[in-house]
Amino acid sequence: MTEPTPRRAPAGAAVLREDVTEAIRAAVFEELAAVGFARMSIEGIARRAGVGKTAVYRRWKSKLSLVLDLVGAFAAQGLPAPATGSLYGDVRALLEVASHALRHPVASQVIPDLLVEAARNPEIAEAVTAALLDGQQGVVTQIVREAAERGELPEDTDPGRALDLVVGPLYWRLVVVRTPLPPGYVDDLARSAVAALKA
Amino acid sequence: MTEPTPRRAPAGAAVLREDVTEAIRAAVFEELAAVGFARMSIEGIARRAGVGKTAVYRRWKSKLSLVLDLVGAFAAQGLPAPATGSLYGDVRALLEVASHALRHPVASQVIPDLLVEAARNPEIAEAVTAALLDGQQGVVTQIVREAAERGELPEDTDPGRALDLVVGPLYWRLVVVRTPLPPGYVDDLARSAVAALKA
Repeated sequence: MTEPTPRRAPAGAAVLREDVTEAIRAAVFEELAAVGFARMSIEGIARRAGVGKTAVYRRWKSKLSLVLDLVGAFAAQGLPAPATGSLYGDVRALLEVASHALRHPVASQVIPDLLVEAARNPEIAEAVTAALLDGQQGVVTQIVREAAERGELPEDTDPGRALDLVVGPLYWRLVVVRTPLPPGYVDDLARSAVAALKA
Repeated sequence: MTEPTPRRAPAGAAVLREDVTEAIRAAVFEELAAVGFARMSIEGIARRAGVGKTAVYRRWKSKLSLVLDLVGAFAAQGLPAPATGSLYGDVRALLEVASHALRHPVASQVIPDLLVEAARNPEIAEAVTAALLDGQQGVVTQIVREAAERGELPEDTDPGRALDLVVGPLYWRLVVVRTPLPPGYVDDLARSAVAALKA
């Protein structure tokens, strides 16, 4: 994400550029939380980051590409490799990560913002889906494949449907219903998801 | 929702008032689909409905109360009474209704709009939750209670968690992932939801 350091640049230049990039990223999250995607502007981001508008445009071509870049990085971070040796363990590990991620402001505010844009613009919908879902779908596909190899799931289990069954209830609870999870909720949900996958 | 007809009003007055109310409602849906909740104004609604702003304010005190009124009526309409005699049949009937409702523009555009507002305003969050969820929660609570009476579910099944397991995967698929349902999806989902509830 940082620009290549020019050959003869002073030693501090690359560091400075990274600082600016980080300041812009932090400003984007603050602006998104404060005003939302629809009302957010590159001007507002630059002002909050204490940089010029060109510093933003040099890095990202639009506010959409900027937000998708951040959301994609956020959605991919910390996704577990399914390596517990059991379907329940793998699903439990994924739900644990997801239950934290979905309570982060990026999820609870920015993802709904982006879905609003996606509902009116197929191009945005595709980009949002890719940024949000590709990482999770990859993990679930691997979990399902390994479970099938162990004989825990039928060979023809559909990975898309598996993602719906594993992530859907948690997303609904945390982002739509918005009530706190009672103790043991993630364990119960992992058990239910495994039963749903096997049904 | 129509105003009481004054005693001595001409015969057509009540009808006319209902027409105005309906014209405003239709205009709200069109405005929401076109510009979204954040950018929608009472002025825009009145213009599209061909009425004055006061005709809108006489009926609803704000654009939020107007939209919540419509969303609440939409969410409650067509919810099935769980009367099939089996947990699978009741869950299947609810998912069938929900799968149509969630593909309606109200769900695919307006609900995400409202969740964006809800993420930043607890008062809106409460009103949205009530309008959207109370009807569905009522149906799921009844389904769970009757299943427990038949011995199909444990007596202590949590109705909130049951709603997450039944509606979550479908909402995720239709409103977040936004890919078409393959044939037999609702049947499979009902079977999975029953297994998840029993787990």
